[in-house]
Amino acid sequence: MPKLLIDKDKCLKNIEKMAQKAGSNQLSFRPHFKTHQSAEIGNWFRDFGVSKITVSSFRMAAYFAEAGWKDILVAFPFNPAELQALNKLSVNTKISILLDNPDTIAFLSKLEHPLDFYIDIDPGYGRTGIRSGDKKEIEKVLAASGENPSLNFKGFYCHAGHSYKANTNIEKEKIHLHAMGELQKLKEEFAVYNPINLYGDTPNCSTQENFPGIDEITPGNFVFYDLTQILLGSCSPKQVAVAMDCTVSGRYPDRKQLLIHGGGVHFSKESVMLGDQDVYGQVAKQEDRGWSCLGEKTLVTGLSQEHGLLEKVGELFDRTRIGDRLLIIPVHSCMTANLMREYHSLDGHVIPTMNS
Amino acid sequence: MPKLLIDKDKCLKNIEKMAQKAGSNQLSFRPHFKTHQSAEIGNWFRDFGVSKITVSSFRMAAYFAEAGWKDILVAFPFNPAELQALNKLSVNTKISILLDNPDTIAFLSKLEHPLDFYIDIDPGYGRTGIRSGDKKEIEKVLAASGENPSLNFKGFYCHAGHSYKANTNIEKEKIHLHAMGELQKLKEEFAVYNPINLYGDTPNCSTQENFPGIDEITPGNFVFYDLTQILLGSCSPKQVAVAMDCTVSGRYPDRKQLLIHGGGVHFSKESVMLGDQDVYGQVAKQEDRGWSCLGEKTLVTGLSQEHGLLEKVGELFDRTRIGDRLLIIPVHSCMTANLMREYHSLDGHVIPTMNS
Repeated sequence: MPKLLIDKDKCLKNIEKMAQKAGSNQLSFRPHFKTHQSAEIGNWFRDFGVSKITVSSFRMAAYFAEAGWKDILVAFPFNPAELQALNKLSVNTKISILLDNPDTIAFLSKLEHPLDFYIDIDPGYGRTGIRSGDKKEIEKVLAASGENPSLNFKGFYCHAGHSYKANTNIEKEKIHLHAMGELQKLKEEFAVYNPINLYGDTPNCSTQENFPGIDEITPGNFVFYDLTQILLGSCSPKQVAVAMDCTVSGRYPDRKQLLIHGGGVHFSKESVMLGDQDVYGQVAKQEDRGWSCLGEKTLVTGLSQEHGLLEKVGELFDRTRIGDRLLIIPVHSCMTANLMREYHSLDGHVIPTMNS
Repeated sequence: MPKLLIDKDKCLKNIEKMAQKAGSNQLSFRPHFKTHQSAEIGNWFRDFGVSKITVSSFRMAAYFAEAGWKDILVAFPFNPAELQALNKLSVNTKISILLDNPDTIAFLSKLEHPLDFYIDIDPGYGRTGIRSGDKKEIEKVLAASGENPSLNFKGFYCHAGHSYKANTNIEKEKIHLHAMGELQKLKEEFAVYNPINLYGDTPNCSTQENFPGIDEITPGNFVFYDLTQILLGSCSPKQVAVAMDCTVSGRYPDRKQLLIHGGGVHFSKESVMLGDQDVYGQVAKQEDRGWSCLGEKTLVTGLSQEHGLLEKVGELFDRTRIGDRLLIIPVHSCMTANLMREYHSLDGHVIPTMNS
């Protein structure tokens, strides 16, 4: 079985760096825990002053509430099917939610506890949220929520996820500045509510230095980073804190191809385009403790349920034998961690997740 | 939370049809259980005379051995790291493995029980296996295995997975006939060993009628089918036996877009190209019992960790409201079942899997 290795020192440095950036910008820090999904890793954040978190589902909220977290934002436009879970969790935990549609509020008429909400704002990403310029729709949500005495409007939440599609630093900065500007405007237009602005995605939070108008950041992936983030320039290769330990199970000299036991049920089928090929991971170099990244010629370019294939890997092919272990940097660490359900520390300690 | 629904009647019909095809072709039937990963669903196969199965990992083999299966092929080129698991399982269960490299055999010197193996043959797919024409390499495996008294050569295993990439029925038939021909030749060339030929992939086993030279088929996906198989012509839409029950959590009139709670951690990120877009699922129509498929204008075209997005869905957009449920046919049912870890029958009964 492949094992997902974790380098705790790298994680701690990643957390420290982001906490420092938040601190130096007078930003509150509410990291997204969907990446690691682990109570033990969650605890590593406490030493950096973290006391509130973001999650992506009520199931995850329940897990982290059980682990002692008292202030949890479920960053998904509220799913009406989750009302019971929300009421149950709100007994002992300060849960907050996202809203982006006045129609959702009808499903919140039976709230059993006061509930903070943020209006989800779309700065041009086009996934969820009210378009940042659509003041009327925001007012509709505020009007509908105003009739529900349990609902308390806290501010705006914005995920500028189109940063993942930006090809240049100039594009990235343009996306960031546009989102900042839109959130700043909303703060002014709705000043009567004294709203706060939440903002967060790993590329922007990792690379940008100024966050005018923002009060709180909510990035998640930065705790591990991954191949996607390396390619985006969000991190250096040496910051990537997880790698999959896979055994070479096939070697095909006629096609210069290696097979590893490590497929879609381990890495997820998420890929990233490099040149004209879909890539599912990159081989790392094993060090005395942990690993360092190898270059772009050591890629996993094929993936099925249990199989990973490495082709055109040059001299790596020649020096690799059946039974050797290869460490692979995943394309998307959140999806990989979700599938693997536990981590193996460099000291051989198993770290469980909510799916263990 | 999204729920993975299962229509048992459809599953039984799918199993019956494949069992009948095996029977009428005098083929033994060793279905691949990586698709459903469930002891309870596994039991449904017993009524159709199934007594031996295929799996994709030793973890899965251990689960099904525990569930009473006595003859299990682990259809993955043997991973040397699994020797201990193999020895442990072989105490009470007849385990067989695949080999495609003479170097792997050195790792089998400490076998504690006799072990059947099949030589994995590549008929042009290019994933694993010895090229079907490479008689020398096959002889090397046989020579090396001949020195290990615990190893018993049973025959050849062939997965013609390039059938998934065939665009026309003519192409598909060409792939099938070529693989049949190659396996037939191997049977003759290595007749002294009296080898049997195993063959199996859902597209070929579903659509082809003649299997000359084949002794046993090992398809897996056919028990559920999925959107990929519909598009390949392996099944009709009404044969698809699983669908995800998702709640509509967002509705964006400005961009005519619906958001469902159902993302990559539920469906997997596997996609299929339809026209020029990546598709992650197709909406089905809820019936009094179960569902039927809607057309190709009701597609999930965006997917992130917890989010599914439906765009350009025409009148489905107009008649859908926040809180409505949508049933979604997954792109790849094996990957979806692996993530969801349980099924909900149409009678409301929960069916666990090895990951529950």
